[in-house]
Amino acid sequence: MNCSIISIGTELLMGQITNSNSVFLSQKLNEIGIDVYYHFTVGDNASRLKETLKYAMQWSDIIITTGGLGPTQDDLTKETIAELFDKKMILHKPSYDRLCSFFTKINRYMTENNLKQVSFPEGAVVLPNDFGTAPGFIVEHEGTIIISFPGPPKEMTNMYVNYAEAHLLSKTKEIFYSKMLRFFGIGESQLETELIDLISNQTNPTIAPYAKEGEVALRVTAKAGDRQQAIELVEMMIKQIREKVGKYIYSYDDEEMVDVVGKELMRRDISISLAESCTGGLICSQLTGVAGISQSFDRGIVTYSNKAKEEELGVQLETLKKYGAVSEETAKEMVLGLQRITGSDICLAITGIAGPGGGTEEKPVGLVYIAAMYGDRFITQKLTLAGDRDRIRKLSLLHALDMIRKLIKS
Amino acid sequence: MNCSIISIGTELLMGQITNSNSVFLSQKLNEIGIDVYYHFTVGDNASRLKETLKYAMQWSDIIITTGGLGPTQDDLTKETIAELFDKKMILHKPSYDRLCSFFTKINRYMTENNLKQVSFPEGAVVLPNDFGTAPGFIVEHEGTIIISFPGPPKEMTNMYVNYAEAHLLSKTKEIFYSKMLRFFGIGESQLETELIDLISNQTNPTIAPYAKEGEVALRVTAKAGDRQQAIELVEMMIKQIREKVGKYIYSYDDEEMVDVVGKELMRRDISISLAESCTGGLICSQLTGVAGISQSFDRGIVTYSNKAKEEELGVQLETLKKYGAVSEETAKEMVLGLQRITGSDICLAITGIAGPGGGTEEKPVGLVYIAAMYGDRFITQKLTLAGDRDRIRKLSLLHALDMIRKLIKS
Repeated sequence: MNCSIISIGTELLMGQITNSNSVFLSQKLNEIGIDVYYHFTVGDNASRLKETLKYAMQWSDIIITTGGLGPTQDDLTKETIAELFDKKMILHKPSYDRLCSFFTKINRYMTENNLKQVSFPEGAVVLPNDFGTAPGFIVEHEGTIIISFPGPPKEMTNMYVNYAEAHLLSKTKEIFYSKMLRFFGIGESQLETELIDLISNQTNPTIAPYAKEGEVALRVTAKAGDRQQAIELVEMMIKQIREKVGKYIYSYDDEEMVDVVGKELMRRDISISLAESCTGGLICSQLTGVAGISQSFDRGIVTYSNKAKEEELGVQLETLKKYGAVSEETAKEMVLGLQRITGSDICLAITGIAGPGGGTEEKPVGLVYIAAMYGDRFITQKLTLAGDRDRIRKLSLLHALDMIRKLIKS
Repeated sequence: MNCSIISIGTELLMGQITNSNSVFLSQKLNEIGIDVYYHFTVGDNASRLKETLKYAMQWSDIIITTGGLGPTQDDLTKETIAELFDKKMILHKPSYDRLCSFFTKINRYMTENNLKQVSFPEGAVVLPNDFGTAPGFIVEHEGTIIISFPGPPKEMTNMYVNYAEAHLLSKTKEIFYSKMLRFFGIGESQLETELIDLISNQTNPTIAPYAKEGEVALRVTAKAGDRQQAIELVEMMIKQIREKVGKYIYSYDDEEMVDVVGKELMRRDISISLAESCTGGLICSQLTGVAGISQSFDRGIVTYSNKAKEEELGVQLETLKKYGAVSEETAKEMVLGLQRITGSDICLAITGIAGPGGGTEEKPVGLVYIAAMYGDRFITQKLTLAGDRDRIRKLSLLHALDMIRKLIKS
C-alpha cells in the first residue's frame, strides 16, 4: 500500500512553521510498511486543496491530511472532502457534547463557529482529540482511505498513535514490529562506523539511524507473518547491536533520557535536589515534567547571580573570587551546600557559560562544570560544548541527566 | 506570480530529515511577492518526478526544485527536466574546469560519474555552488521558469541568496509586507468573532489567525507597488485590530511572551526572583533562556516538597496544614518569603496541581495560584486550567509571564 500526505495551511507556504507532521507521519507509516510516495502542502484554499486531493487520489491507496479542521472560516478540509465526494456534513453528537463540556469547564462562551469542528462528512469514523477541540476522521471513497488530522503536532501525533494506526494496521497483511534504541555519548557517524557490517547487510530487520539534538537513535524494524516472529527478529538484531555499542544505549523503548532518570528515581525511592546556574532551571523543569516525581524531587535552587550562590548554597566569596563562578571548585561547593541544606540522596550542581556573551579566552562559551553526589560517591565533570545558548543548555541538561543515571546504576 | 517548490529525495519521504529548504524558500519568495501555492516532495524516482513536474507546470509561473543534482545514479533531477522539455544535456565548460581544480586541490581522483554534475539542459543559466560540487541552474520552458538547487541547505541557501534571487526580482512587480501579532487571554474562535467584520471583508491586507498552545497569533499581509505603501496598509489594518482587541496583544513583532518579558526587565533594569512549585522550574528555565538576562535574573527557588517551602521560603507549617500547599495563602507566604530573602524588584510565586495525580474534588487538577509583587503592588490570581500535565504547566507559565508583563507596565 502507498500513501500521500497533504499538509494544509497557508502558514506552511509562508515558511512560518516547519512541517514536522510530515516527518512524524512518514516515519510511522514506513514503520508499518506503507510506502510514502508524495508529500503535498497547500494553503487554506478550497479549489487548490480539491485539485490536490484529486491528483493524489490517482496515485494513492491512502491519503492523509493534516490541518484545516479548526473552527474558523479558513479551515476548509472537511467541507472540501465532503464536496469532492458528494457527502453531506453531519453533526457528531458525542463530539458536540464533549466540546460543550470543555467550554463549560474552562468557563468560556462557545461561539457558534465551534459547531463546524464537530460536523463530519457522512459515513466518517470520528477520531477523538485528547489535546484539543478539533476531532479528526477517517472516510473511505472508491477504495481510497482518507484520514484527516488536526494541524497542531501534539494533537496529531496522539491521534495517530492512539486512534488511527490500528485502522491502518487492519488493512495491511504483514506484521511490522519496531524498536527505537536511544544512545548518548556517541555521534551518528561513529555509531554508523561501529555498526557498518550490520547496516550494510540489512534486509530484514532494517536499521535506520536518526540524529537528534545531542544524541542518536536507531530504529530496528522487522516484518513477518506474525507478531512473535517479528519480535524475535528485532530482538536478535538488538542483541548484536548491544554487543558492539551497548554501553551507549540508555533506552530500548524510545524513552527520553529525563523519563528514564525520573522513573528510576521513583522506582528506587531516591530523593533528589538540584542547584543550577547556567541551565537556569532547565534540569528542574524537565525532571518535574515527569508525572509522579514529587515523590523523589525535593527542591531546586537556581542560583543565577553570585549573591544567590553565596546566600542560598553557602559558596565562599573567596572561591568565587579566586576560581570564578564557572569552575570545578564552585561546582563542588554548590553541591556540598545543597547536600547540607536538603539532605537529599542525590544532589547535583551545574555552573557554566551558555553564551552568547560572558566567554573569555580562558573560559570560553560552552565551558560547563557539573558536580554530583550520591551517598559516598562524588563525581565531577568538565564539558566543553559547542553551539548557541539553547544548544549548550540542552546538551548540559543531557550530560547532567546522564550523570544522575550513571550514579543511580553504580 | 506564483511558485511551486518540489523537494526531491527519498530520505524526506522516509521521515529521516526535516524539509528546512521549503521553509527557507517560502519565506524568501513571499518576501519578494511571489505566492507559494504548493510544496511537493517526491522520492528519487524519475517517473513520479516527471508526473509532479507536469502537474506543477499547470499551476505555476515558477517551479523550484531542491535535491537530486549530485553525481550518483539516484540523482535524476536534471535528466528528468531535460527529457520532459526535450532538451539535450550539454557539458558546461567553466563548471567542469572548476570541478577538476577542486579534485586536484583535495588530491582525489575524479570518478567519471562526476561529469554528470557539470552537464545541464541546453539553454540553462548555470548557478555556481560555493559550498559543494553540484551547481544549480535556471531554465525557461513555454513561459515557466524552472530553478534547480542542490539539496544540502547550506549550498541551497547560499545559491538562492547570491545567484538566483536577482533573477526572480527582475520578474516581479509587487512587494509584500507582513506582520504577526501575538495575543494572550483570548481564544482563536473568540478573536475571530471580535474581528469578523475585518476578516470577512479582507482583500488587501489579508488577515490569518493561527492557534498556538495557550495563545493566538494573527498575520496581517499587504501587497503594494512599493514597500512604504505595503507597510502603510498593514499599519492601518493593525490600528483597526488594536481598537477592537488591543488589550490582548502582547507583541506586534511575532515575539514569544518570554522574550517580551525578558527584554522589558532588562530594558528597565528590574531585578526578578521566582518561587515555583507546580511549574517545577519551567518559568526560571524559560526566562533564563533569554540571552543577557543574568543582568535581571537573581534566583529561582523550586520548592517542590512542603519541607522545601518551609525551609527555603519560610512558609508556616500551620498555613500548609490549614489551607494546603495549593492555596492563595501559601502562594502569598511563598512570595513574601522570597521577597524577604532576595530583595528583588519583582517576585513571583506559583503553586498548583499539574496532575495527572494529586487532584481532589475540592482542589482539582489544573487549580493554580500565582502571587506576585513589584514595589507596593501585590497581586494574586487563581487559575482553573484544563489539559494534561504538560499543558497545565505551559499555560501556568504563560499566565505567570503575562502577570509579570502587566506588573512591569502598571
